[in-house]
Amino acid sequence: MAVVSDRIDESPSTQPGTHARAAGVWSPVLVPLRDDLGIDTQRFLTHAHWLLREGCHGLALFGTTSEATSFSVDERKSALEAVLAGGIEPQSVMIGVGCAALTDSVELTRHAVAAGVRRLLMLPPFYYKGVSDEGLHRSYATTLDRGASNDCELYFYHFPKLSGVPITHGLISRLRASHGDLVAGLKDSSGDWEHTRSLIEAFPDLAIFPGSESFLLRGLRAGGAGCITASANVNPAAIRGVYDAWRADAGDVDARDEAIRATRTAIEAHAMVSALKHITAHFRNDPAWRRTRPPLTELDARDGAALLESLATLGFAANYD
Amino acid sequence: MAVVSDRIDESPSTQPGTHARAAGVWSPVLVPLRDDLGIDTQRFLTHAHWLLREGCHGLALFGTTSEATSFSVDERKSALEAVLAGGIEPQSVMIGVGCAALTDSVELTRHAVAAGVRRLLMLPPFYYKGVSDEGLHRSYATTLDRGASNDCELYFYHFPKLSGVPITHGLISRLRASHGDLVAGLKDSSGDWEHTRSLIEAFPDLAIFPGSESFLLRGLRAGGAGCITASANVNPAAIRGVYDAWRADAGDVDARDEAIRATRTAIEAHAMVSALKHITAHFRNDPAWRRTRPPLTELDARDGAALLESLATLGFAANYD
Repeated sequence: MAVVSDRIDESPSTQPGTHARAAGVWSPVLVPLRDDLGIDTQRFLTHAHWLLREGCHGLALFGTTSEATSFSVDERKSALEAVLAGGIEPQSVMIGVGCAALTDSVELTRHAVAAGVRRLLMLPPFYYKGVSDEGLHRSYATTLDRGASNDCELYFYHFPKLSGVPITHGLISRLRASHGDLVAGLKDSSGDWEHTRSLIEAFPDLAIFPGSESFLLRGLRAGGAGCITASANVNPAAIRGVYDAWRADAGDVDARDEAIRATRTAIEAHAMVSALKHITAHFRNDPAWRRTRPPLTELDARDGAALLESLATLGFAANYD
Repeated sequence: MAVVSDRIDESPSTQPGTHARAAGVWSPVLVPLRDDLGIDTQRFLTHAHWLLREGCHGLALFGTTSEATSFSVDERKSALEAVLAGGIEPQSVMIGVGCAALTDSVELTRHAVAAGVRRLLMLPPFYYKGVSDEGLHRSYATTLDRGASNDCELYFYHFPKLSGVPITHGLISRLRASHGDLVAGLKDSSGDWEHTRSLIEAFPDLAIFPGSESFLLRGLRAGGAGCITASANVNPAAIRGVYDAWRADAGDVDARDEAIRATRTAIEAHAMVSALKHITAHFRNDPAWRRTRPPLTELDARDGAALLESLATLGFAANYD
């Protein structure tokens, strides 16, 4: 299902109003690589446009799915510039700016703001473990104070299995107390519905995004904002379809939800980024898409075949025409 | 106990021979900060010289104790340049170059080599977890291939509690198979003596450094290379004393060992970097030394007082005259 691009205008993320927050189906964006492991800007841009055409409300650039932490600050800045120069609107972008190094986070934030991007997805500094909320608050506050503009929207990025540094309710409350409306929401990649639910309940005025479409419908029904989900890279239209069916109170919403969750389950049986690149390479008939930057590796032949077979069983196919 | 500086020449790390590997007591180096959280180069240099005068065989710059991952590549490069311009010899330096981003690791390695530093202490890329040895091997191999010279020495940095990415025996074997003598050793910050022992046994020709003086003497007796230990920042002479007593087969080596381990135990009851900065600030009578870069925080008043009291009980004092 291809969605005409002006449909984006109906999305809640761009509805009139001051400080409208992101909502709907946002796709992190896979980063294709050249054979020297540098970013393949042209393929990246082509893919970004395809995701929006397929119905994503916006793009979350340089999170985990983009292998963000594997790229230097300069590589990340150049890629954002290329995407914007290639016709993606800044308001369609949520940009990952959270690094281990405070000064890197500040630099990426300043750069994004100068480029017109206001939605910031921010990992906590992720090397030291067991750090205090006071220390994390200083990280977020200093990054905002030095890098952000007053109309920015800060989305916490909670992914404790990879960062090792959870975003606690206490930290969110502290940053709201110090920075008010700059705090806009959170992406919850815990994979734990109870955690997502607790965030929606505790912070009803924040945009809480589960990090998987498996929790999209449940999240929407509970007051969540939508989802920011890696597998939107290969299944965007169907995921958007669940969102639209929910908004329209359509009778087939649960059947649609079941279908996207089955696809997700098939994909997440494998290493996520590598699996998504494998699927993209297959359906684009473009083996270059399989490349990953170390320390990630491509799916091996057996895993790749098993993945495609399980998707075929579900009748899944991606259409890049 | 101050040690005259030409004593460094007796250290095994600078003994004649091709490709002499690091050995002895190496100190990671605390990084003092200005009030804008930038690196205070002058205090950094003063401290580095003091550590060598007190008997450290060398300095491990930009590991965990240096809050390395909290600084940008440019900040790390500038600090190394300042240290070398300030009279620290490149052969007295082991430089941390392992970053989350492959391209950052390459850039820091190239910079170190151009500056004359050959000893590279390399964390694995530390954001993604559960990555394969194949992926980690690609990270190390690509960094060495693009950044290192043939006379470099690669020291793995194993600190699974913080990096979340262990250095396995299999990874070490793979990199030795592909890069031979470039692989020189490993710093084991697991805090697990059995793990250190297994490395010394499995790789008797590598320089294996426990990451704590608590395992210095045990390590030396088992064939280890010495230690690279954070607490050398405040207790260098006594730790060097254990190393010298062991080399001289002195009768008091066990008593000396017991004393440095008691000091270590008192310090590591607190957050390590913050505790070491607190001790330094106290004995230098220089409160600026307490500053940490977010996400780390200073010890609070109660913790700081408890730390100093436990050290006083042990008769510990640092002398910066």
